This record gives sequence, structure tokens and C-alpha cells, in this order.
Amino acid sequence: MSWKGHHVLSVHDFTREGIQSLFEAADKCKAAVKDEDGADKSVLDCCKHKVLGLVFYEPSTRTNCSFATAMLRLGGTYINVSENSSIKKGETLQDTMRCIECYSDIMVLRHPEKGSVQAVSSFLHKPLLNAGDGAGEHPTQALLDLYTIMQEQGGKIEGLTITMLGDLKYGRTTHSLAMLLAMYGVRINYVTPAGLGIPDSVKEVVESLGKVISQNEYLDLSEVIAETDVLYVTRVQKERFESLDEYEKVQGSFIVNHETLANAKDTCTIMHPLPRVGEISESVDSYPSAAYFRQMENGMYVRMAIIAKVLGAL
Amino acid sequence: MSWKGHHVLSVHDFTREGIQSLFEAADKCKAAVKDEDGADKSVLDCCKHKVLGLVFYEPSTRTNCSFATAMLRLGGTYINVSENSSIKKGETLQDTMRCIECYSDIMVLRHPEKGSVQAVSSFLHKPLLNAGDGAGEHPTQALLDLYTIMQEQGGKIEGLTITMLGDLKYGRTTHSLAMLLAMYGVRINYVTPAGLGIPDSVKEVVESLGKVISQNEYLDLSEVIAETDVLYVTRVQKERFESLDEYEKVQGSFIVNHETLANAKDTCTIMHPLPRVGEISESVDSYPSAAYFRQMENGMYVRMAIIAKVLGAL
Amino acid sequence: MSWKGHHVLSVHDFTREGIQSLFEAADKCKAAVKDEDGADKSVLDCCKHKVLGLVFYEPSTRTNCSFATAMLRLGGTYINVSENSSIKKGETLQDTMRCIECYSDIMVLRHPEKGSVQAVSSFLHKPLLNAGDGAGEHPTQALLDLYTIMQEQGGKIEGLTITMLGDLKYGRTTHSLAMLLAMYGVRINYVTPAGLGIPDSVKEVVESLGKVISQNEYLDLSEVIAETDVLYVTRVQKERFESLDEYEKVQGSFIVNHETLANAKDTCTIMHPLPRVGEISESVDSYPSAAYFRQMENGMYVRMAIIAKVLGAL
Repeated sequence: MSWKGHHVLSVHDFTREGIQSLFEAADKCKAAVKDEDGADKSVLDCCKHKVLGLVFYEPSTRTNCSFATAMLRLGGTYINVSENSSIKKGETLQDTMRCIECYSDIMVLRHPEKGSVQAVSSFLHKPLLNAGDGAGEHPTQALLDLYTIMQEQGGKIEGLTITMLGDLKYGRTTHSLAMLLAMYGVRINYVTPAGLGIPDSVKEVVESLGKVISQNEYLDLSEVIAETDVLYVTRVQKERFESLDEYEKVQGSFIVNHETLANAKDTCTIMHPLPRVGEISESVDSYPSAAYFRQMENGMYVRMAIIAKVLGAL
Repeated sequence: MSWKGHHVLSVHDFTREGIQSLFEAADKCKAAVKDEDGADKSVLDCCKHKVLGLVFYEPSTRTNCSFATAMLRLGGTYINVSENSSIKKGETLQDTMRCIECYSDIMVLRHPEKGSVQAVSSFLHKPLLNAGDGAGEHPTQALLDLYTIMQEQGGKIEGLTITMLGDLKYGRTTHSLAMLLAMYGVRINYVTPAGLGIPDSVKEVVESLGKVISQNEYLDLSEVIAETDVLYVTRVQKERFESLDEYEKVQGSFIVNHETLANAKDTCTIMHPLPRVGEISESVDSYPSAAYFRQMENGMYVRMAIIAKVLGAL
Repeated sequence: MSWKGHHVLSVHDFTREGIQSLFEAADKCKAAVKDEDGADKSVLDCCKHKVLGLVFYEPSTRTNCSFATAMLRLGGTYINVSENSSIKKGETLQDTMRCIECYSDIMVLRHPEKGSVQAVSSFLHKPLLNAGDGAGEHPTQALLDLYTIMQEQGGKIEGLTITMLGDLKYGRTTHSLAMLLAMYGVRINYVTPAGLGIPDSVKEVVESLGKVISQNEYLDLSEVIAETDVLYVTRVQKERFESLDEYEKVQGSFIVNHETLANAKDTCTIMHPLPRVGEISESVDSYPSAAYFRQMENGMYVRMAIIAKVLGAL
């Protein structure tokens, strides 16, 4: 699998070797930004004279800033076409993207419609990175999540027990991550409120690769917290429930705090794609294994690696 | 005509020599960005340490991104004051621009009011580029259109037949282009719906320079398509018509597709300032002479040349 | 007082020595940007590879652009999280800022709530600059005002008579400036409409440092214009008055024009934080001592100095 000159659209395009080489590049980026001893500082200029076109049809401060700073920290620059009103003048998505292509060397697109990013990519001659296509995929988020798991768990993924918590029915992030984990020998637990379980279609894809040791579903975190190496928390959105009553009934079971974590391993890595709105108590922030802000930072290093690999600069 | 240190406000300020030297600079910019053999790569750093102030009182993704990336590709940087709410705090335009002037080395202004850009320029000590003043001018668009015609037609303008299609009454872009073409020995055809013809005032200005071979008006493209070297398509906006009926009557005659182009020369350059909303069928995109996306890209090179010449860097 | 690695939150943190060393850095920045003879041009690259995170919960073109261009002119880059809708997704301010911290080397925050910037700073490991916290402080504005006074008055502050004009009750800018001036032997006059006088709390803080020669309040500029070395004009907002009648009664007394300035010294420096909405007649712009646009420009140099000092680059 080669990154150079290719679109990055779906986790299904990735191979273990491709991911391995990407994460080695992310390590180099991290060392250079943090100015570690022996770091290769030329990384910080390796995309000089290159322009990244950021096109966001849905707001997303975090993903947008992460890509923007990734490019800046490689010595490149960017333009931002996010939420700009004139992208709504009745023009087709492909015309807009072909215009942005005239100005830039690589593009990032977030769009609310599933499949839209893949569809428009066939019109483009320069590489396109999928930053989320509605209920579809968010492949760079899955990569940064996997990178964080490796960083926090001593470099290995094989043999880990990963528990995903929250609304896994509508959570694009967790679908992409599960499908990426499918390439490794891990145990995956899905803990969700009734009716918000992981879709069978996702489980089948994960199963089909034949690597994952087990996939199990639960309604209560307490059943699996003790065996969990990585707890991946996501939000349970009020509006997914039929009534406020139903929401309030389950809500408490999906809040991570001292009590919830009482039986967790000390080394249990706690992750969250952020923003959180109460799912993880602030009292958990001081746990050495609370990794969500490091996960955020890793997003920049992984995106630096993606941009640099795709542009052939690393 | 010297570009260095001057405002760029109107096509009336340009001379053929000035345009020639600008287009030579645009060629250098294009070669450097495209990394062509023998390209002078120092162009990509020639505006290092310079800041462009972009002030847009009307949204325009394309023009804004084009100027922004032009500056980035010269090694410079920019700030964007587009649609920012605090430019509406009751301050005069000249005060706002004098503030932006404190921070930048060169400025770009788009404003909905005709004459506003010219008016404010007299308060400024640093160069101002007009990016459109309402029904007034859009001189950098005219320059990139002319540059594209030359690029697509083998370097010459003299002797060409240029047909402009669509609403030419309200189309600022075509007025500026016609007035720029007035310096060359060309034939200009204006094909418009009844009531949306090119204003007499524009035709008189074009006539007055004494270079243009002919200016003729038509209601139907079929009358002139066979002789046309350059077909410049613009939009016919629904809201310009008294009734939807009237709009629907003419609309079909102003759509460019296989049928419309049946009698066109193979070498007939097809242009459009974009965005298009149906005026050019997507089936035309594969024509080798369909130049609208190259025109878009040329916008960046021409604006690189303008910025670099005005700053004295090229 | 050391700037390196510290937050810049309040004028109360500053010392005269710290200010002196900051202003020397600002002089270097000014010389480098203006390309003066003997200027140290390395200043223009001293923050290369550094990223500034700009977070504005209230719009402010001027302050935002001033910080942005300050960073650009030091060779650094920035991201802008101003008014971006996804900072409103119910996330706490500290979570948002800890995310921005993951991507940047130094941060600027403007927030409408008094004390919010100070409060969030305790969660951050990288330096935070206060760009205004509601009715609280705006310390970098106070520094650029003081720098401008020194620049315009031949390098000295001791012994000057500074008159502040307008609404001094709600004017955060003038409170911060008064508290900064409190470190010097100056006379301060406050000229305000009835009911919009400087708060006693501010006067007490100024008094408590024991340096200021006098603080006096007036209702009419004519009483003190002749003795004034620096006239600091601010806006009187209509909405502060109980009725339009009351507003119109006083309004005229707070407009600076030829008549108001008839008895002023030729060397009386006229300042305004801008934007102005009629408080200073445009006929005053041509006075050699009208310093408000130079004040604006100085904002960039002082902010360059702050960023560079805090990052340890100057």
C-alpha cells in the first residue's frame, strides 16, 4: 500500500503495512514538533510551498484546526473554505472541489452526505482526504485513535481488550475504529443503551476479516470494566431517545467517573473523541491513563504524517 | 506603465505594455508553481515577510481563495477580514481600510458599492487591488480572462472573434473584459436575451479606443457560433426577468451543450467565470477546448503576478 | 519580571522593568518590519515553526488581525477559532482551550465574561494572552497605548498630563490604561458625562501605587484641554443613557474637532482605541499629533514583542 498521490477515503483502503509506515512517520512528526533529542527537524519544512485546501460543509473546529495545524507544522499553508456562504450558490460539489483543486496541492473535505466524498474524488486529479462524510466514514479519526491506543499501550495492539461505550448505532467514529481494529487480534466489547447497539453490518465487516478474537455486546459497563485495556467513550445524545424519560433512565450508566472506574485496571486507557458533554467527569482528568487530550494532540501528528506521506514528502 | 507601488483599480489604467509585462510575470509564476523544467523557483519566496490584507464586504470564495493562494504561493501570508461582523460597527470604510493598512503591505477590497474602492484608495498609502466594486469593475478578473484567451489561442489576441453570451447588462465581468479587449484588433459579438444587452456606455468606451474591428449584438448564438474563436459564457439570472414565463422562453437558448456547439470550431475556447448553474452542460467538460477550470487556475497565476509586480518583487 | 513562558493576563502583573524590556523589543520589531537602516531582520523569522491559537468568543477584527499579523511578521503562523459555531457545542471553556493547546505553542483568548481568561489559564501548560475578558482587563491594549504615549512624547512618561475623555464607567480600555499609568508620575484627568465617571475602584487602585501626581474628574474638556499632553478619546455609547434626550444633551461635548482643540498644545497627542463613530472629526486626521492610526500600528509591534518575549524568541 502506497500513500503517495492517493486519496484517503475509507479505512477499507488501509493495510497493516501501510498503517505501520504511517505511524512511523507520525512518530517522526511528534519528535520534531516536540523538539526531542535526535528529532529530524527537516520534517518541519517538508511541505514548504504546498497549499492544503480545507473544505468543510459541516462545522468542526477540532478536525479543521487539527488538519490546519498539521499542514502548518510541516511548513505548508492552507486555505479554509469552511461554511463560506458562496459555496452555497447552487454550484455542484464537484465544481466547487475542482475550483479548490486549481489553487491547492491536496484537499480535505467534510460533507454531511454519506458517500459524497468518495463520489467527488473521481473528478479530482489531486489527492483528497475524507474528513467525515455524514453517517459514512471518518478514516483519519480512526487512524489517530489506533495510533493513540498503540502509544498508550506500549506499542502493541494484539491481545488488547477494547471496550466502546455509548451510542454506537449513530457513532461514525466508532464504526470506523471497529473496522480498523478488525485487522488485529483484539477483543471488542460494545456497551450501549438498548436500541443504540453497534449495527450488525459493522459487526459483520469486522468478523469477515477473521482476525478479531471476539465481539460482544453489553448493556452495562460494570460487566466488562475489569478486563478492559482501552475504554473508548462516546456521547449518548438526548435526541436519539424516544422520550426524555428513557434518556434519563440510561444516562447515568454511561457516565465515566471514580465510581464507574472503581474496578478498572490502573493501565486502562480512557479515550474520547471530544467534545465531551458530561460523559467523562472532570475528576477523571487527573488519571495518568486519561488519554483524551493526548489523543487530540496525536490527531495532529497522524494528520501531519498523512499529508506528508500523500504528498511524498516523508 | 509601472505596476510597482500602484493601486490596481480599473482596466482603464492598463496599457498593452503593462499587460504584456504582467503576463510574462504570470508565465514565470505558472512555471514555478507547476515546477516546470527551467522554472525560476525563487518566485515562490519572492514575497516572503509580506502580508496581504483581504477585505471582502461581499462573499466570494473563488476570488478570495484565488488572492489568498496567490500570496501564499509567493511565500507571503494574508489576513482575511471577510464578512467579519465587527467591520459593521458603524465605522467608515476608509477608517477600516486605514486600520488594515497598519497591518499589511498590500490590500484587496471587494465592496458592493460602485466606485467605493476607487474612493477609499485616495486615503491609503499602500497599494490597493480592486476585487470588484458592485456594478463597477473587476479588473483582475478581466486580466485573467485575457491571459486565458492568450494561453488557449496560442499567444495571440489580434484577429480573434470573441463571443460573449448571457446577461451582458448586469454582468460586471463582461464589461471589464470588453473594455480590456478594446485595446486589441478583435471582433466582439454580444449574444443576449432581449433587454439584457450590453450597455451602450460600454460599447462606446470600446469603440472610442479605435482598435476593435467590430462590435455586434445578437439574440441567438447559432448566428455566430461557427465564426467564434472564444465563447465567453455567463449566467442568465432568473430574477432579471419580469416573469418566470419570459425567463423560461429564453433560457434554453443560453445553455451550452453538444447541440449548441455542433457548428463550433474544434479550437473554440469555451470560458466561464464560474460558478455555473447549468449554463454549460457537464458533457462539455471533456472538450479539450473547455477552458473554464484552466481559467480558474490562471486566476491564481495572474494574481500572483499582480501582487509580485505591485510589491516590486518580480 | 520575566515574560518567557508566562501568561499575560492583567496589567497588575507588569513591572516597570518588564515594560521597559518589552518596549525595547517592540522597537526592534518596528525597525525590522519598517526595514529601517540597521534593523535586525532576524526578528522576522524568530518565531518560525511556532503556531498561535487565536480564540475569540466575541468578534474583534482589530485585535484579532493585530495578533494574527504580529505572529505572521515574526515568521510564525496562526489558527483562528473565532466565532466558529462548534465552540458552542456545550463544551466547557477549559476543554476547548485544552484542545487548542494541543495544536499551538501560545494562545490568545477573548471572552465576554470577566475573570474567565484568568480562570481558564490555570488549566493550561502553554502561555495564554488575555485579549479582553468582558468588563475585566485588556492588558495588551494598555501596553500599546502606553507605548504610543512614549513614542509620541519623545520617550518619556514622567510628568505628562493625560486626559481621558468619554464613557469611563464601562470602558475597559481606559481602566487598564489608568492602572498601567499608575506606575508613573503622571497627572490624570477624567472627563466624562455625569453618571459615566471612572469607577472609584479604579481610582483607588491607581492611588494605591503612590506614583500618580493627581487624579481629577471633570464634566467638560474645555477645563483641561490647555494643560493636556495626551488626549485619550473613547466612545460615549447611546445605549448607556436613560433617554435619547440625555444622550443628545451631552453628546456634543464629547466630540473632538477644530473647536474643541482650539486651546490645545500643538504637541497634544490625540489617541483613540478605534473604531470611532464620530467622536473625532475627520478634519482632525491631518493634525501631526493625531496619533490614532499610529497607535493601531504600534499595536502590532507591541504584540510582536509580547509573543516573541513569551516564546523566548527575543
